[in-house]
Amino acid sequence: MNDQLCPKMEATLEILGKKWIGLILFSLLQGPRKFTEIEKYIPGLSGRMLTERLKELETRKIVKKNVYAETPVRIEYELTPKGSELSSTFEAIAIWAEKWN
Amino acid sequence: MNDQLCPKMEATLEILGKKWIGLILFSLLQGPRKFTEIEKYIPGLSGRMLTERLKELETRKIVKKNVYAETPVRIEYELTPKGSELSSTFEAIAIWAEKWN
Repeated sequence: MNDQLCPKMEATLEILGKKWIGLILFSLLQGPRKFTEIEKYIPGLSGRMLTERLKELETRKIVKKNVYAETPVRIEYELTPKGSELSSTFEAIAIWAEKWN
Repeated sequence: MNDQLCPKMEATLEILGKKWIGLILFSLLQGPRKFTEIEKYIPGLSGRMLTERLKELETRKIVKKNVYAETPVRIEYELTPKGSELSSTFEAIAIWAEKWN
């Protein structure tokens, strides 16, 4: 038995395992969304918590914030290439969820 | 854009996204482990929290507890078939972790 936890895996599971992170990323898999769209999509997620989580995801370059100079200003959140590559993870989870829940 | 969050996916991301759950499941992917082995494998995880999480995973039939009538009694935690089928999820995460972290 390999008794060494890989630091990369540890770091990844730590961020992906944070409350709401999975649902927020899942909500962005289909394309860019406005703050209020994400908020509406996830029952029970407060605006304050969503702000905090989006900032963490931006810091880790998993999500980026696009600001469009329109009137009124339009702001959308989008997965970066790094974030988009999590899609196979969510596909695996979706298959499992369908089968076992 | 599909604006309906599938309840199965929501329930699954809720449990998989709980703090320590990912690391605990990952630690069991290679086979059954004793409580102290899991504890040692995951830095920062307290015994009390591990007990709590293992109970949740048992309730959801993702992990089972095996008690062997030896002297001293041997207790091991093991993934159920339901739990084992999460391995493709962890493989997808591991590939991502290797590439991006």
